[in-house]
Amino acid sequence: MDVLQEQIHSVPSPRSLRKRKKLSDVTNMNQRTCRLDISSPTQIVYVVGTELKVILDRCAPPQAKFFSIKCTPNVHYKVTPPTKDKNTLPQPLTPNSILIITMDTVSETAFDSKLSVRYYGEKTETLVEAVLHLTAVEISLDVDANRDGVVEKNNPNKASWKWGPNGHGAVLLVNCDSETTYKKKLDSENNEISKVSDLQDMSEMILRTNGPSQLPEGYKLSMYISQTTSESVRVFRPRTNVQKDNVWKYKLLKLFLKDYLMVVGTKKLTQEVPYLGGNTELVFYVEGLRFPDKDFDGLITINLCLLEPSGKDIPETPIFTDKVMFHVSPWIMTPNDLKPVEVYVCSTTDNYKFLKSIKNLVEKSGYKLKIIHEYMNRGDRWMQDEIEFGYIDSPHHRFPVVLDSPRDRGLQDFPYESLLGPDFGYVTRHALNEEVSSLDSFGNLEVTPPVTVNGKSYPLGRIIIGVAFPTATGGRNMTQVVQDFLWAQKVQEPIALYSDWLVVGHVDEFMTFVPAPDRKKFRLLLASPDAGYKVFKSLQNKGHGKMEMFPGMPEAISINEILSDKKLQAENRYVQSCIDWNRDVLKKELGLDEEDIIDLPILFKVMEEEEEEEEEKKKSIPRTAAYYPDMVNMIVLGDQLGIPKPFGPQIKGQCALETEMCSLLEPLGLKCTFIDDFASYHKLLGEVHCGSNVRREPSPFRWWNLDL
Amino acid sequence: MDVLQEQIHSVPSPRSLRKRKKLSDVTNMNQRTCRLDISSPTQIVYVVGTELKVILDRCAPPQAKFFSIKCTPNVHYKVTPPTKDKNTLPQPLTPNSILIITMDTVSETAFDSKLSVRYYGEKTETLVEAVLHLTAVEISLDVDANRDGVVEKNNPNKASWKWGPNGHGAVLLVNCDSETTYKKKLDSENNEISKVSDLQDMSEMILRTNGPSQLPEGYKLSMYISQTTSESVRVFRPRTNVQKDNVWKYKLLKLFLKDYLMVVGTKKLTQEVPYLGGNTELVFYVEGLRFPDKDFDGLITINLCLLEPSGKDIPETPIFTDKVMFHVSPWIMTPNDLKPVEVYVCSTTDNYKFLKSIKNLVEKSGYKLKIIHEYMNRGDRWMQDEIEFGYIDSPHHRFPVVLDSPRDRGLQDFPYESLLGPDFGYVTRHALNEEVSSLDSFGNLEVTPPVTVNGKSYPLGRIIIGVAFPTATGGRNMTQVVQDFLWAQKVQEPIALYSDWLVVGHVDEFMTFVPAPDRKKFRLLLASPDAGYKVFKSLQNKGHGKMEMFPGMPEAISINEILSDKKLQAENRYVQSCIDWNRDVLKKELGLDEEDIIDLPILFKVMEEEEEEEEEKKKSIPRTAAYYPDMVNMIVLGDQLGIPKPFGPQIKGQCALETEMCSLLEPLGLKCTFIDDFASYHKLLGEVHCGSNVRREPSPFRWWNLDL
Repeated sequence: MDVLQEQIHSVPSPRSLRKRKKLSDVTNMNQRTCRLDISSPTQIVYVVGTELKVILDRCAPPQAKFFSIKCTPNVHYKVTPPTKDKNTLPQPLTPNSILIITMDTVSETAFDSKLSVRYYGEKTETLVEAVLHLTAVEISLDVDANRDGVVEKNNPNKASWKWGPNGHGAVLLVNCDSETTYKKKLDSENNEISKVSDLQDMSEMILRTNGPSQLPEGYKLSMYISQTTSESVRVFRPRTNVQKDNVWKYKLLKLFLKDYLMVVGTKKLTQEVPYLGGNTELVFYVEGLRFPDKDFDGLITINLCLLEPSGKDIPETPIFTDKVMFHVSPWIMTPNDLKPVEVYVCSTTDNYKFLKSIKNLVEKSGYKLKIIHEYMNRGDRWMQDEIEFGYIDSPHHRFPVVLDSPRDRGLQDFPYESLLGPDFGYVTRHALNEEVSSLDSFGNLEVTPPVTVNGKSYPLGRIIIGVAFPTATGGRNMTQVVQDFLWAQKVQEPIALYSDWLVVGHVDEFMTFVPAPDRKKFRLLLASPDAGYKVFKSLQNKGHGKMEMFPGMPEAISINEILSDKKLQAENRYVQSCIDWNRDVLKKELGLDEEDIIDLPILFKVMEEEEEEEEEKKKSIPRTAAYYPDMVNMIVLGDQLGIPKPFGPQIKGQCALETEMCSLLEPLGLKCTFIDDFASYHKLLGEVHCGSNVRREPSPFRWWNLDL
Repeated sequence: MDVLQEQIHSVPSPRSLRKRKKLSDVTNMNQRTCRLDISSPTQIVYVVGTELKVILDRCAPPQAKFFSIKCTPNVHYKVTPPTKDKNTLPQPLTPNSILIITMDTVSETAFDSKLSVRYYGEKTETLVEAVLHLTAVEISLDVDANRDGVVEKNNPNKASWKWGPNGHGAVLLVNCDSETTYKKKLDSENNEISKVSDLQDMSEMILRTNGPSQLPEGYKLSMYISQTTSESVRVFRPRTNVQKDNVWKYKLLKLFLKDYLMVVGTKKLTQEVPYLGGNTELVFYVEGLRFPDKDFDGLITINLCLLEPSGKDIPETPIFTDKVMFHVSPWIMTPNDLKPVEVYVCSTTDNYKFLKSIKNLVEKSGYKLKIIHEYMNRGDRWMQDEIEFGYIDSPHHRFPVVLDSPRDRGLQDFPYESLLGPDFGYVTRHALNEEVSSLDSFGNLEVTPPVTVNGKSYPLGRIIIGVAFPTATGGRNMTQVVQDFLWAQKVQEPIALYSDWLVVGHVDEFMTFVPAPDRKKFRLLLASPDAGYKVFKSLQNKGHGKMEMFPGMPEAISINEILSDKKLQAENRYVQSCIDWNRDVLKKELGLDEEDIIDLPILFKVMEEEEEEEEEKKKSIPRTAAYYPDMVNMIVLGDQLGIPKPFGPQIKGQCALETEMCSLLEPLGLKCTFIDDFASYHKLLGEVHCGSNVRREPSPFRWWNLDL
């Protein structure tokens, strides 16, 4: 009966989830008033599980004083106020005499059941008899509300959605992959089902009906969604009315693809659906069209109603409504502790040596390597920055989804052209009236391993982005549309760090996470100028002051010279205070102890203005970059770390910085491989992590089990 | 430290309310890492209630093995891991030695407190001493988080918002009135404070500080809001730094209005605010700019931070952040059971008689009458349809706010021109790419008295609107923008009824609420053709069949004729089924029993196509209107009802329909006055309610006490 309540778009809010009423309310919920007619029999279709209510006095002849009721055996009734003895003897008619009718078995033929009300005057002479002809049917629109991959029958929670392991509610995927590889477009942009494999990306929804072979004339089943919902979902069904228990026909049908038609969806809010007759099932396929965002909470309601004819040219009246609710899967990022599937790097004219090192590392680790050649990367080597790999997940299916950055440099076409395909989804956001800055590159978008903070657990980790201080003028930020998108996914609540103090401005320039066998199962690695100075001072104390950083290279400089550079010291004090600010935020937001953090010996320096490509127009503030290859900007492949080779002072034939890194990381069971990225990446203000990307396996934790 | 987290616009969701951490977390929350410098003393500003953390090993000389600590008496510290004996003897320095510093009294002068760390080598010879110079201040940004009308000091819940009598969180009004009456515009559209009275519409927010007369050089206080928030709020402060305890100066200042300046708000996300020195308060005035809507949950966070200088041209670092949260008052409607303040009707060339009747009724009831003359109404008599009266409410102030319909006929300018003014607010919504229909008139927007449904209470009632069935094609609806607005107010959760079966399509054509002394303190009145036929049949049975409806009028017709009209019967069966559908929804959504509903004897008839003015272009479906004056369309003024005079059959000199109405309503203590609206309203498809409007007193229930 609350057929209209869905019409209004509700403000996204978990609180507004339509809660299933307690069982005690069901009577009231599904009660329908119907009129008796004393002039001719009234035909009524009844849905099992509801109640028909007749206001007995309202249709009675004015002189009626008593009534009696008769019915066929499958019809049950009660009268309020209760009559003294429950039989067919005339009872006194009062203004508030109400008749409640129920049936518990479905009709075999239309109007095979009957109930009659006889009205009597003063002297119990029969004045008139009003007759109801009844047809009972069962109707249930079903989804996988218990999230076990199977569409159960009439789950009492199917119309609402609740997070958590004790929660309920069906799950929907945004159909953001492309079944075709030639002239491809997103399946969600296609109003038709182009390949039968596309059905795998959709959620099944089953209409189960039981009753006579046909509905009485003029009665219809109709599916509908609200205007707002129609932007977020499409529902398909086989054009031929095929029953799932007819396996041969069902399989044959799957060969003829155009036999699926859209029932509701884009620009189609309502449509009749067939009633198949007998005890039957009709399977629907539901696809999501958009991810949760600022103006969409991810919840979708689909309604099915039974319409009663009202007369020529008059809209039919919905006399029974069933509804189901889906939640669209959020887009989920994969932290460094998840198993890699494939490593992506670019091939450029000048990075052969780097590529070879990466290849060795990936092969040693046993993962796949994908090299993006120049015709596709167009000289853009920053594989980390154009895309972020994630995935979407449902009980029946999941697949990777790439988030394409609004950055759009040489690699701009790569995610759509090369990654999008069958079971590989694509999503992007376009900046609106906003300048896209370096902070929109996805080296500035990371995710933590699972954490628990003050008792609140984030089993999928937390997203990390870098921004400017809100009190700073002229600061750069990640565009609002991307921030809105990330926040709206809800399952990896983002943390904003301060990264605008760096020329490039990416969080991966000063932090990463590596797996660890103990404690929280990971360590946070932070760049630390203090730790760097400590290494150099210690070497000086040990008499190595004349040893050189960048030995044998044009940039060579002695430890003594580095330590006596007051300007460099001041710059690094500033950098350490910036990193410490982020350190405090990360400790608080991730619930970390000092022992969960490792400070890596890395110095930074302020870059001259002319090197700040993107900031030319703005009044420049001094921004920094790593002084020597930024070892925190590493690639993490299981226990194998690919670390930028720092070219530190050689002590007893060993690079002192590499030695220090190994002493910090090897006790965790990690293996350090130092990769020379000096000429082809470091000099261009990036390192190993900036120049690579890793697609990883999804988390074993299912997002709907989050207690949000 | 979570200064950046606000930067991201969060998806509206009560769940995302920033929850205050438990006290046990406060230590971790407000911990700040600071660097020791062994080359020169470090100056630190400390905020009472936070902790300073020093990683002792990080800044130590490489050869340091021990340390000791000394400090002035007002400085407290602890060391982890704990040292064996708490004295100034050298303690062993370990890589994870942490020093935690606190102070509990504010400084009288800058850097009047001191702590030093002395590092020792192997043989306990002093290597170096690192010194901290400390200044302690107190900073608290305060609001009326306990909702008692007074801004208390540092409420632990000030940064979050919780509904309910045990809830917390400050309240803000949308400054939607106009202090000026000449060349007026909404105060919320004015970036300046034009009159001191405008401050009454704003919420006070107080910055309380305690410390030395000035902050150390380079330190600043700064207020900031997020980009998204800046669309919803402005904060003002006196331009002169005036203290509230200086009453004379404060009062004098209030005479010079331009002395208020905007601190943050539209296009101004951050600004420095003065530190006044000593133990002082600075008052800010906060105004809301927009109502909750589809994309705005009504929550607003305002931040204040202490900035530390970082060096020339480098952005200052926020070292302490305090924040407060407001919820904008929703727009609230007033049901029929609230006391009337003023009745509004239009004067037209043809409604003198009607006007006189209304005037008599209103005077008798003791309320004010406001007649809108023709120069303003431009022939549009439908006072109910252009506007809906409501109000906004906060602990410190409330005022009426008119919602202007997108209907826009003759009365279009009335709400802005005549109602908007000091302490009389205005809000409207404009249809976007949608056709405005008759269902956008506010005769189609009503609100119920307080109800409790299955244990859930709605102490402010529930909004009621009329729409088309979602399964119908060509149906009319209330525009989405207005529906979104109504839903987003949250405190009177709307119910959608089916009203598109009526030519005019307003819910007030078939329902209203009247006060009652018993049960739920009200009755739902519904138009009922069945009840109408029952009256006529009863009259026929009693031998009055030849008596006439509309006696002595051109439309006169006998009861016998009415009862023998099969077409009219069929039409009224259809109308009854439409009303019954709504009856079932209302019973369920309002938790009503049969005894809470009174069926009024009203017949309807299908109107000929040519009369459906607004629907000319569409393929017409038969729509209906009241056959005789629609008695449910009444004006309710306390216990006085102004009911359309039905012109029913005269039985013993009494109108039988009036007699029936009185017998139904007078037992509730209600007084029925029948008003002749036949020529000037009924014939134009409206009645008394359509032609009037009532501004009522606000509910005694405060909206923030709702348990949402």
